[in-house]
Amino acid sequence: MIGRLNHIAIAVPNLEDASQVYKETLGAIVSEPVPMPDHGVTTVFVELPNTKIELIEPLGEESPISAFIKKHPKGGMHHVCFEVNDIFQARDQMIALGATIVGAKEPAIGAHNKPVIFMHPKDFLGTLIELEQKD
Amino acid sequence: MIGRLNHIAIAVPNLEDASQVYKETLGAIVSEPVPMPDHGVTTVFVELPNTKIELIEPLGEESPISAFIKKHPKGGMHHVCFEVNDIFQARDQMIALGATIVGAKEPAIGAHNKPVIFMHPKDFLGTLIELEQKD
Repeated sequence: MIGRLNHIAIAVPNLEDASQVYKETLGAIVSEPVPMPDHGVTTVFVELPNTKIELIEPLGEESPISAFIKKHPKGGMHHVCFEVNDIFQARDQMIALGATIVGAKEPAIGAHNKPVIFMHPKDFLGTLIELEQKD
Repeated sequence: MIGRLNHIAIAVPNLEDASQVYKETLGAIVSEPVPMPDHGVTTVFVELPNTKIELIEPLGEESPISAFIKKHPKGGMHHVCFEVNDIFQARDQMIALGATIVGAKEPAIGAHNKPVIFMHPKDFLGTLIELEQKD
């Protein structure tokens, strides 16, 4: 079912510092910050030849990653995102197999303007998994 | 400097259960387990169209991931691996920029029979980073 790795998300306390690490120390191509108030994060994209890394910083008081940053003040790997052909079929399969969807079971529009769901780490080896409808 | 994302490594307490999750629940193509006694892990490769995931289980009493599993008994994202054109140049650049190499500074042969170094999470936003000499 899962297809391409769309991205790895790394939550960071300070996006400017994080961008510098990827740009200067690791020599990667790094985008300008993109605020995503609907998702409670500001994002920088690190472009790799085969996939991307999303550096995410909490935005606003209700940010879904604030608790993570409190627990990991230097930042840390937050989730991985896999593309699926059909997000509704994927959602139904997850439910049928007893895996736990985080939040609403109805796919919501994600940071890339495509419908996504998040799967609970407890069912996936401690890894928060985002499934995203592919193009 | 960094090129392709070679893999994401996810440390797991039980490789058989972990393989099942990726095979049955996520519908991915999963290899047979490969014991790597020199590296203190047994590995299963999850093949994705653009990269791979390595599920790693501790092997032997000196396994470098035993402490991680004790801290994260259900498993968790352990490191990311980027390819570099020249591991020695990458190593020198890391040292020149003040980043901390984990263990020996001389690139060692990694799990893919290519020289690798590991960079300390404290300098990389809480992420353990493996740099691997590309083909």
